[in-house]
Amino acid sequence: MNFKTEISLYKRQIDTALRDCLGQTEDFPETLRMSIEYSLFSGGKRLRPVLFMSAFEGLFGRDPKEGLPYACALEMIHTYSLIHDDLPAMDNDDYRRGKLTSHKVFGEAAAILTGDALLNMAYEVMLENAFKYPDDLATHLKAIKLIAHASGLKGMISGQMADIELIWKTSAEETLEYIHKKKTAALIEVSLSAAAALAKASEDEFKALSSFGNLIGLAFQVIDDVLDFKAEDEVVECGQGCAKLTYPIVYGLEGSKNKAQDYINKAISDLDLFGNKALFLKSLAQYLAKRQE
Amino acid sequence: MNFKTEISLYKRQIDTALRDCLGQTEDFPETLRMSIEYSLFSGGKRLRPVLFMSAFEGLFGRDPKEGLPYACALEMIHTYSLIHDDLPAMDNDDYRRGKLTSHKVFGEAAAILTGDALLNMAYEVMLENAFKYPDDLATHLKAIKLIAHASGLKGMISGQMADIELIWKTSAEETLEYIHKKKTAALIEVSLSAAAALAKASEDEFKALSSFGNLIGLAFQVIDDVLDFKAEDEVVECGQGCAKLTYPIVYGLEGSKNKAQDYINKAISDLDLFGNKALFLKSLAQYLAKRQE
Repeated sequence: MNFKTEISLYKRQIDTALRDCLGQTEDFPETLRMSIEYSLFSGGKRLRPVLFMSAFEGLFGRDPKEGLPYACALEMIHTYSLIHDDLPAMDNDDYRRGKLTSHKVFGEAAAILTGDALLNMAYEVMLENAFKYPDDLATHLKAIKLIAHASGLKGMISGQMADIELIWKTSAEETLEYIHKKKTAALIEVSLSAAAALAKASEDEFKALSSFGNLIGLAFQVIDDVLDFKAEDEVVECGQGCAKLTYPIVYGLEGSKNKAQDYINKAISDLDLFGNKALFLKSLAQYLAKRQE
Repeated sequence: MNFKTEISLYKRQIDTALRDCLGQTEDFPETLRMSIEYSLFSGGKRLRPVLFMSAFEGLFGRDPKEGLPYACALEMIHTYSLIHDDLPAMDNDDYRRGKLTSHKVFGEAAAILTGDALLNMAYEVMLENAFKYPDDLATHLKAIKLIAHASGLKGMISGQMADIELIWKTSAEETLEYIHKKKTAALIEVSLSAAAALAKASEDEFKALSSFGNLIGLAFQVIDDVLDFKAEDEVVECGQGCAKLTYPIVYGLEGSKNKAQDYINKAISDLDLFGNKALFLKSLAQYLAKRQE
C-alpha cells in the first residue's frame, strides 16, 4: 500500500471513531454538540491519532479497536488546546485552517466550555474503553497517565504559558526548545509513547518511539515557524525581552530548515530497531519535513 | 466530637493534601503555580471534599489516604469551573469570596490556562493514586469514571451551558431543575457516589448517597439564589425567554426557603439506613440549609 492511501485509511478510521464517540453521548445542549463537531471536523491533519494508530496497529500489530479511543482522546485534547489558544485573551485568532475559529462562530463562552468539554471527554472516552479490558487495566491506566502528564503542567499547558509569557531560559535557543518541547512536542511524543505503553513494548522500543515523537514534534514546530515567516520578522540578535521568538528569528531561515531536517533525520534513525515495520512512520516523518501548509 | 470540630479537622486534612499535590509537581511556570495556589486556597468551603471524606472515612471506615486524592481532585474540578465561570466572557465576576477573581489578578490568558491545568491535574492525581492499589484498579477506575461523567457533557459543563443559554424545558420549574441538577448538584452528588463506589458500598447504600448528594446539591443552589435575592428581581410570572431564572423568581422567597428545607429533609431521611454513622452528614445537610453566606 502506498503512503498516501495508508494515511487516508487511518484518517477515515479515526473520523468514524470520533463520530461514534459523539454519537454515544446523549442529551446535552445543542450549541455544545454543534461547536464540538465544528472543531473536531474542521479539516485537521489528525497527526496525533495517525501516529498513535500507526504505532499501535502498524508497528505492534495490535487490534485497532483497543487503540482507537486513545486516538480520539489525543485529537480531542489537541482540539481543545487549539480552541482555547485561539481565544481573544490568548492568541486572538479569527481563523484556523481557513475557517472561523470556535469563538467567532459560537461566542467566547461556548468556546471556553467546548474546550473544557473536549478535555474532559478525552478522559471519559479513555476510561470507558479501559473497562473493556479488565485483565489489562494496569496497562491502560499507564497509557492514560502518560497522556495526562503530557497534557498538563508537565507538558502542554506549561508550554503554552511559557510561550505567552516568553519565560526566559539561559539562551534564545534553550528558551525556544523549552517552550516547544512542552507546547507542541509533548503531545506528539505521547501519541507514540502511549501506543508503545499500551502495546507493552520493550524499554528500548518505548525510548525509541518517545525520542522519535519528541524530534518530529520539534521539527513540526520549526517548519510551522518557517511557513509563517515573513521577511520583516528577521532580527539579527534576539536576547531576553524580545517580543517574539521563532526558529527563523534565532537560526535564520536556512538554519531553521536545516535544523528541521536534522531533527527528522535523527528521528528516522531512532526507528531502525523496528526494521521494515517502521516504513510508514519514517515516510510520515519525511512528509512532515516537506509539508507546505 | 462536635460538628464544628469535625468539619475543621476534615478541612485541615484536605488543605494539607492539596498542598502536597502541588508540591509534588516540579518545574512549571511560576505564574501558573501562583494562580493555582491563589484559587485553590482562597477560602473555599471544601464542601465536595468534605462530603467525599466524611462518606469514605466516616460512613465506610476506609483509610483516608486512599480517598484524599479524590477529595483533592473534586476540589480542583470545582475550582477550575469557578475560574472559567468568572471569566469576562462568562459571568464576568471581579470578586469571589471577597477576593479578586483569577483573571483580575493574573490576566485572562493565565486564568483560562489555570482552569485547564486544574481540570487536567484532577485526573493526574486520581490516576497516580490508583496505581498504589494494583489489586483494586477496577474499583478506582469506576470512581474516576463517575467523577469524569459528572464533570463533563452529562453533567457540569452542560449545566453551565444550559444556564448561559437558558435552554428552556417544558416549564420554568423543570428548566431550573435541569440546569442546577447538572451545573451544581452533579459534582456534589458524585462527591458522595464516588466515595460509595470506592468503598464498594452496596447498591442500596450507593443509591441512598447519590440521592442525598443530588438533593443537598439542589438545596445548596436554592439557598444560593435566596441569599443573592434582591427585591427588584421579583417577577410574578416568568415564562420562556425571561432573562434570569432563579428559585425566588419562580417559587417566591418563602416558597424557595421551604423548597430548600424539603430537599434537605428528604436528603436526611435518605441516610437512615446508615444509622448513627450518618450523624455527621445529616448535621452537614442541616448546616447547609441554615447557611448565611
